[in-house]
Amino acid sequence: MAGKSHPLDCLFKPEAVAVVGSVKKGKIAHQIITQVVEGGYQGSLYAVNPKAEKPDGFPQVSGFSSIHEIGGPIDLSVICTPSHVVRQVIEECGGVKVPAAVVITSGFSEAGNGEGEREVLECARRYGIRIIGPNCAGIMNTGHSFFPSIEIRALAGRTAFITQSGAVGGAVLAMAKLRGIGFSKFVSFGNRSDVGENELLDYLRNDTDTDVIALYVESLQNGRMFMETARKVADTKPLLIIKAGRSGSGQRAAGSHTGSMAGSDKVFDSMVRQAGAIRVEGIEEMLDLCYGIHRLPPMGGNRIAIVTNSGGPGILTADRAEELRLDVKETYQSVQDKLRAFLPSHCAFTNPVDLTVEGSGENYQKTLEILLEAGYDGAIAINVATPFLDSVSLAGGIAGAVHSTEKPVAAVFMAGEIVEDGKEALEAKGVAHFPTGERAAYVFSKLSAYHGREKQRRTEVPGETRELSLRRPVLEPDGVRFLEGEGFCFPEHRFVQSPGDWETVVSGIGFPMVMKVVSPEILHKSDEGGVVLNIRDKDRLNSAFEEMRRKFSHCDFRGVMLYRQVGPSLEIIAGIKRDPDFGPVILAGAGGIYTELLEDVALRIAPIDKNQALVMLSELKISKRLYGGFRGGPVLDSEALAEMLSSLSRLAVTYPAIKELDLNPVFSLTKGYLIGDMRLLQ
Amino acid sequence: MAGKSHPLDCLFKPEAVAVVGSVKKGKIAHQIITQVVEGGYQGSLYAVNPKAEKPDGFPQVSGFSSIHEIGGPIDLSVICTPSHVVRQVIEECGGVKVPAAVVITSGFSEAGNGEGEREVLECARRYGIRIIGPNCAGIMNTGHSFFPSIEIRALAGRTAFITQSGAVGGAVLAMAKLRGIGFSKFVSFGNRSDVGENELLDYLRNDTDTDVIALYVESLQNGRMFMETARKVADTKPLLIIKAGRSGSGQRAAGSHTGSMAGSDKVFDSMVRQAGAIRVEGIEEMLDLCYGIHRLPPMGGNRIAIVTNSGGPGILTADRAEELRLDVKETYQSVQDKLRAFLPSHCAFTNPVDLTVEGSGENYQKTLEILLEAGYDGAIAINVATPFLDSVSLAGGIAGAVHSTEKPVAAVFMAGEIVEDGKEALEAKGVAHFPTGERAAYVFSKLSAYHGREKQRRTEVPGETRELSLRRPVLEPDGVRFLEGEGFCFPEHRFVQSPGDWETVVSGIGFPMVMKVVSPEILHKSDEGGVVLNIRDKDRLNSAFEEMRRKFSHCDFRGVMLYRQVGPSLEIIAGIKRDPDFGPVILAGAGGIYTELLEDVALRIAPIDKNQALVMLSELKISKRLYGGFRGGPVLDSEALAEMLSSLSRLAVTYPAIKELDLNPVFSLTKGYLIGDMRLLQ
Repeated sequence: MAGKSHPLDCLFKPEAVAVVGSVKKGKIAHQIITQVVEGGYQGSLYAVNPKAEKPDGFPQVSGFSSIHEIGGPIDLSVICTPSHVVRQVIEECGGVKVPAAVVITSGFSEAGNGEGEREVLECARRYGIRIIGPNCAGIMNTGHSFFPSIEIRALAGRTAFITQSGAVGGAVLAMAKLRGIGFSKFVSFGNRSDVGENELLDYLRNDTDTDVIALYVESLQNGRMFMETARKVADTKPLLIIKAGRSGSGQRAAGSHTGSMAGSDKVFDSMVRQAGAIRVEGIEEMLDLCYGIHRLPPMGGNRIAIVTNSGGPGILTADRAEELRLDVKETYQSVQDKLRAFLPSHCAFTNPVDLTVEGSGENYQKTLEILLEAGYDGAIAINVATPFLDSVSLAGGIAGAVHSTEKPVAAVFMAGEIVEDGKEALEAKGVAHFPTGERAAYVFSKLSAYHGREKQRRTEVPGETRELSLRRPVLEPDGVRFLEGEGFCFPEHRFVQSPGDWETVVSGIGFPMVMKVVSPEILHKSDEGGVVLNIRDKDRLNSAFEEMRRKFSHCDFRGVMLYRQVGPSLEIIAGIKRDPDFGPVILAGAGGIYTELLEDVALRIAPIDKNQALVMLSELKISKRLYGGFRGGPVLDSEALAEMLSSLSRLAVTYPAIKELDLNPVFSLTKGYLIGDMRLLQ
Repeated sequence: MAGKSHPLDCLFKPEAVAVVGSVKKGKIAHQIITQVVEGGYQGSLYAVNPKAEKPDGFPQVSGFSSIHEIGGPIDLSVICTPSHVVRQVIEECGGVKVPAAVVITSGFSEAGNGEGEREVLECARRYGIRIIGPNCAGIMNTGHSFFPSIEIRALAGRTAFITQSGAVGGAVLAMAKLRGIGFSKFVSFGNRSDVGENELLDYLRNDTDTDVIALYVESLQNGRMFMETARKVADTKPLLIIKAGRSGSGQRAAGSHTGSMAGSDKVFDSMVRQAGAIRVEGIEEMLDLCYGIHRLPPMGGNRIAIVTNSGGPGILTADRAEELRLDVKETYQSVQDKLRAFLPSHCAFTNPVDLTVEGSGENYQKTLEILLEAGYDGAIAINVATPFLDSVSLAGGIAGAVHSTEKPVAAVFMAGEIVEDGKEALEAKGVAHFPTGERAAYVFSKLSAYHGREKQRRTEVPGETRELSLRRPVLEPDGVRFLEGEGFCFPEHRFVQSPGDWETVVSGIGFPMVMKVVSPEILHKSDEGGVVLNIRDKDRLNSAFEEMRRKFSHCDFRGVMLYRQVGPSLEIIAGIKRDPDFGPVILAGAGGIYTELLEDVALRIAPIDKNQALVMLSELKISKRLYGGFRGGPVLDSEALAEMLSSLSRLAVTYPAIKELDLNPVFSLTKGYLIGDMRLLQ
């Protein structure tokens, strides 16, 4: 293994491999050896089992009764023994300095035997052996013709696929094979006792055989580290992620944190966006994207042109494209004029452009070229053939357009067998094609999102963390003082513990006022009658105080907070939560009762900068009101809100003791913002 | 044609057919004759063209120079001539009493030649000839071995497919053929100058060869009639509908009404639900459902069990199922106990049930049977095979469960070639199977929605329509009086035109009051300062009136409406709109500014009864607040709201002159409701 530069190289490019376990036909070690031999592995291959048997049907593979007995150096052992023997095999590997093992064997933590898994890992650590598995389906490196896996051998290609589920791995490889999609590397990491997605992603990021990485996960080793790794990968090559367990029952099956079910998937989703990776929903979508992303150039925006020879499929494609937030923008008059110059008037010129029976190869080419020059970021060319139409010449025209542009153009040739030769022509000319326009639109939407991703400078993380010196529970006067000290804005206010000098209070705050009870025992002030609005004179101020004092005399009454009342304005919620995977998360959404009712909330992993906060705000439905023009409302100060959210996100990192912080409502004003209420849990 | 009972029978079961047009190879009439002959048509077939030529390659088909010359009775002519000749051919057909024609020829209204199409239709009407087309791809009746179409011949099956787009028809037939899905009848109706979807649906509803009807439309002939027809069909057999033009660009391409783009698709969606039909998004979804709906029994609810031999695909299926509103309910402890009695503890018992490597045929069968007996309404059994697993015996176990239940059970056998024999075994045993669990979940979601559809008694339509005798524009006092007369509830109120006897007003209404300006020139009272809230005494009442009078003195001030102010409560919008396709539509949604901001709106074609209105309310996000328990809020009187919506829907039908009516806000109370503002356009 001299000259190998990365510790994981011995997994993918070993020169000598021992397969440990019974090599009788039907046994797993026999399956592995079958795959390795039939896959054309060029290195040395040894079978290890107590009786030193050769594998059935493979006389060229020598059998040994122990790894030690082999005598020479071994780069990798693939372990398929019963589970209670695995630790001992690792011990043997350590004895002869085998640097890595793929443990196919199951019966560990997934079956309640966490103890056995820990023992194996401890032993491996002692010898510095890196482990994939246990309970995995193996690995593949098509470039090294190396297939130690129980799944079918992948075709060669330039996508690496890493999966937590061996079964999903098998399904993906099989479906991919039927569609002619190949892979550079495959890793099923199973129980992930040692090597997991973070290390693998980092390795594959620098793998010159890999242009795209696809990942299936149900849970993460380390959320924060994953986000950093994903960000680095996405800067280098596209990273597609299926995260299973989006739903309650899915999360139950994935055995993940049960804290906040739906919420935690939303956090994951935000993380993927922040990292610049691409989230895909399922296997079929992933394969469509694997296919398309290799064959299509980058997409500079989301404006798409559709050229078709028949209305219906064009309409269905447009419908789906808009659902996926592509812009099927109507053609300008000047573009229509250019098209009318060579197409008859019964064609449709508005996008979708319908060439009707005039859809010759030449007309496809000219139309596509005109549209792509006119500012569309990509195009889908649909040909629905009849048995009597020559699809090959259409393929030629579309290929002509593809080769004259640097923008993505995909073809959709529909109607089964009769377009087979047309599709072959597309393949031969390197034109990406899809079975339906809807699926092409899906790929374009992901392409456009990937290439248009926020080019994220990693937001600077506040260097030091600080203690929080607040009494528990945090009373409003203390919380407000703390947040003011950190630069957050509240309306004019006073903490009043006893009646008295109302003059000073009035001159400091002004009418109208809001009064809120301060008591460690009152958590939901509004619900319990602890808030008085619209205090407009000194008499009312005094009487309201006396009412409060009377009402809450048995609830450890500490006084009242008085605020200048803010007039009607847009109410926002802003807050900090802690996610079990990703730590501090910042949220913004519709405030007041609408927060819980409408779930109009955007999330980000903290910290974020102001620009990220602006994007976050724009994701809210209520953002229509921020940017004005909504029912004549004024333009609100979204910049100030964004600054506040960014500060809040830094606060979340600086003070790890803040478990949860809700600012609700935050009044968004034409200049600045004011926080109407706060709740801090530490 | 003696003994044929339905006028459209001559389209589908003709005994003698003339194909009119050039029969040279490559010409459309030649294609039609090729399809008819190769399809095995048993009736008489004649070619008609000026030179009485026989079609190239078909010497058995006689050529005639005119239909008249054939001499015998003709049931159907298929017209493929140039467009300018079609009228004359119809004239000839009329002369010899041909009852029906399929006009393949294009170049009519779709190409700007509406005049030509009208002439053809008038001529056909004169002779009582029924027409399919023009500009269509033809028809098929597999039961009659009759394929006069330019598309590929469908396999025989029990789904009828009607399509407005010939291209979509061709694509569907081709994709269906690759998947082994067959059809009873196929109709491409093209420009729909005469026979359209309503008549065809009505015909196919009674067609004993057809169990399921699938329809692709871009626009409707007559929305109201379609709804009635669809309702009747759905009572008899499942009706699947693709309505293209869901998006703005899609509607542009479909050339549909440009009135309210996104809104009108939502109306269509509501109509489909009310009719009990099934809306599907695209061709692939339609085919999955065509496949599944024939093979699966009815589904009595939405509770689904997932049984798998590997976690990942089970999780992905659960995720998708929940997104589609299936309930992947956790198993009860008693059910888990039954499973634990024969499955080892490392299996997962909570739904998805993961059999792991214990997934033998027998264990699949026992597990499925236990779950279906335990109240699940259907089950998906997933097998992700490795190259060394015997999928055939698993198929046997699943088939065993299928045959011991009346609930739907579908199989998903994944991993490509290695499960081919397993899939064949499923086919042989009549088990429905899908390529992924996600797609099976889609089919189950539609099955469950169809079989659980509101069994709609057609809501009684108010018998008579009435005139509206209100001055224009409708001022608030008049509108409120009208609606009160119709039984709608408002807070105590008075219309006051001049200051004076405030005592009577105060004793009649009580404080606090709301004052609103009445003027034909003030449309948005709030925005223009024409609303005063919180009037708490007589002085304020008087001064507010004087302010209004001064402020609006130049705007045709007519006085003010005074209402008793309603305390904080849930604000709803209720209203009437007119849809260009479906006429009166009723809407309910989140009130106040949130109506436009959040689009939390449910729609129904009017009229609806109270129960339908309750379902409608339950579709709203804000319905959480109606039914109480939300942040400690009280249970509100949803029954009263539903009664009000039902009344509103009858009002919409009774008064066709009401163009638009908005009641916003409607305050939902713990008992009853009160309307806070109204706007009526006539």
